[in-house]
Amino acid sequence: MIGSKRIISSLVKNAASVSFKPSYSTSSSVADKFKIDIGKLIVEKTKAPLAKPADKSKLVFGKEFSDHMAEVEWDSEKGWSTPKISAYHNLSLPPSASVFHYAIECFEGMKAYKDAQGNVRLFRPMANMERFQRSAERLCLPAFDKEAVIELIKKLVLIDKDWIPEGKGFSLYLRPTMIATQKSLGVGASSSALMFVIASPVGPYYPEGFKPVRLLADDRYIRAWIGGSGAYKLGSNYAPTIFPQLDAAKKGYQQVLWLLNDQITEVGTMNMFVFWKNNQGELELITPPLTDGTILPGVTRDSILQLAAKWGEFKVSERAFTMSELARAIKEGRVKEAFGAGTAAIVSPIKSISYKGEEYPIPIDAAKGAGPLTSRIADTIMGIQYGEIESDWSVLVK
Amino acid sequence: MIGSKRIISSLVKNAASVSFKPSYSTSSSVADKFKIDIGKLIVEKTKAPLAKPADKSKLVFGKEFSDHMAEVEWDSEKGWSTPKISAYHNLSLPPSASVFHYAIECFEGMKAYKDAQGNVRLFRPMANMERFQRSAERLCLPAFDKEAVIELIKKLVLIDKDWIPEGKGFSLYLRPTMIATQKSLGVGASSSALMFVIASPVGPYYPEGFKPVRLLADDRYIRAWIGGSGAYKLGSNYAPTIFPQLDAAKKGYQQVLWLLNDQITEVGTMNMFVFWKNNQGELELITPPLTDGTILPGVTRDSILQLAAKWGEFKVSERAFTMSELARAIKEGRVKEAFGAGTAAIVSPIKSISYKGEEYPIPIDAAKGAGPLTSRIADTIMGIQYGEIESDWSVLVK
Repeated sequence: MIGSKRIISSLVKNAASVSFKPSYSTSSSVADKFKIDIGKLIVEKTKAPLAKPADKSKLVFGKEFSDHMAEVEWDSEKGWSTPKISAYHNLSLPPSASVFHYAIECFEGMKAYKDAQGNVRLFRPMANMERFQRSAERLCLPAFDKEAVIELIKKLVLIDKDWIPEGKGFSLYLRPTMIATQKSLGVGASSSALMFVIASPVGPYYPEGFKPVRLLADDRYIRAWIGGSGAYKLGSNYAPTIFPQLDAAKKGYQQVLWLLNDQITEVGTMNMFVFWKNNQGELELITPPLTDGTILPGVTRDSILQLAAKWGEFKVSERAFTMSELARAIKEGRVKEAFGAGTAAIVSPIKSISYKGEEYPIPIDAAKGAGPLTSRIADTIMGIQYGEIESDWSVLVK
Repeated sequence: MIGSKRIISSLVKNAASVSFKPSYSTSSSVADKFKIDIGKLIVEKTKAPLAKPADKSKLVFGKEFSDHMAEVEWDSEKGWSTPKISAYHNLSLPPSASVFHYAIECFEGMKAYKDAQGNVRLFRPMANMERFQRSAERLCLPAFDKEAVIELIKKLVLIDKDWIPEGKGFSLYLRPTMIATQKSLGVGASSSALMFVIASPVGPYYPEGFKPVRLLADDRYIRAWIGGSGAYKLGSNYAPTIFPQLDAAKKGYQQVLWLLNDQITEVGTMNMFVFWKNNQGELELITPPLTDGTILPGVTRDSILQLAAKWGEFKVSERAFTMSELARAIKEGRVKEAFGAGTAAIVSPIKSISYKGEEYPIPIDAAKGAGPLTSRIADTIMGIQYGEIESDWSVLVK
């Protein structure tokens, strides 16, 4: 059994020595293998356009898909094939494909927005591509030309421009995905892969104002651990979370607050932020750090950290903190706000946390459903996404 | 950062309180939903039989597949559909299917053997079905009638009987798999699923006698964690292991020895066994216990434990032990044999372990490539599998 200080110090030492970016790099001599020739893009427009959602207020996340999808195949001998955009269609794969057996799959979540002038915009697409690349490398899936994939996504978004619902808060959710297609049951690096991008029209996460959530901090389940793969957007990080999530839902909680040895890590599928007066009496926005490889480097997370640092009005920290510390701070009235952060919702305000059988309430502006900082972050990021606030984070799609 | 005895003791406490079997049980009132009506089995034999492997000595694990496959679809409203055996074919799934995004997939590995009299045999199929069921439950995939699935597998094996290569060591590897097919991107329990079984003719793992392996005990990567899902046969436990495995291979090691806080857990995709003179001077066969949820409950593992207990010639222990203890025992000449155990190889003898830059050699009978206990276990289990040794573990397929 585990039970000594020596073991713990070895854990911490290991954490420090493991980079969460594997050193599997693409040398320039093999760069051609990773080239995607977007100039040769094949576009086969659908002959049977689908009906667009009749009532955009009834959109459910990820249920309906646009007319087209993008695909690029990869093979260890031939590299990437010619990219193609064609009608949304089923994938045909042998039942022996590695993706069905060993979960060799990774993905990204991003959105295309239509601004008030009708322009189409993406938000920090390169940040998604960089993470996508790291996820692929962690799975021994191929590297790729990131600029070319952004180009491919732009083409898809323009072809399905009419699928981007209009209005602030509405968007076309984009799901770049890479799966291993090798048709053999040996556990190992796949010799073939498929990258595809599908697009789903979505509505605002909170159509009627924020709906703050209740969390269950359940220390029986751990999302990611030191020496694991929690820092990558892999399918394998999600499957084991569904059972705990359902278990929390049955008990009346909307999300799981994921702990690791009492440290706060993530909330549901989002990064976790707390705005508090810390132990030293400083006003601080805090989120767990990326140093031990258990935290997904969220694009929204990074955007919030950068914005808050620019505002310079309070301390901004990427630092480990525990649920016990948070519980004490709540009891002492030092916690101002807490929220999850991610692409789907931008921010998701938290109104209480259940921990070891006790309920810890977090202040919420009853009228707005979120605290002032949470609202300000949402407004600012949304303002940038819809081109109302000038920023190079918003990329026009032309 | 992690750093106190309190935290560790909480980890151990949690381990004790978490069953690695979730309590998601199937009450009798919903049993009908999980019924698979094998009496209605649809068999559509192939009209284009495939060429059987020309040279069975050249079979590669999981590369060729038999003429037929079995399938049963599940839907949260309608339950299990009528099972079907038809020609081996590609699966057609929407790109939004949950299996591609969130790794909601689990599988089993088992084999059909042809004995000297030409009878077809399975080895402990119910043990695989029980684990398959637990894996499915952990993913919120549906429960199923285990007897019916064994029946379905038997039918498939009989239809493709000619695909079972003859000769001891040869077999038809069977891969029951369950995948989530819900066509929506919401992270949650899937409302539909597909169970399928494919079959691949395979040769002996060691066609020319045992080939003992060199292991790399790499403490930078951890396969499974307390509070994780390592005790279930989920695809998500495999994807993150491929990078470390390739890394070890580059350094000249055949397998990774997975550690958790210095504790020995598994080897590659196998359970780990050591036969040694322990600290107390007792002759002991030891393997890590199933108590903390980090170890896959292998069918071969269980078979070895039962056999060795029946032999009663030495102590048999399911007990945690560390790499430091093993290293010391090797240095002191107390380790007799070490091996991995799994369906593919039965046993895989280990000849050395690299740990913290030092090489720890393990005795191996140079002529046989394995120690006497390792050989005896292989001979006994194989004897049972091929019906040469009477045992109710071997199930005749009629």
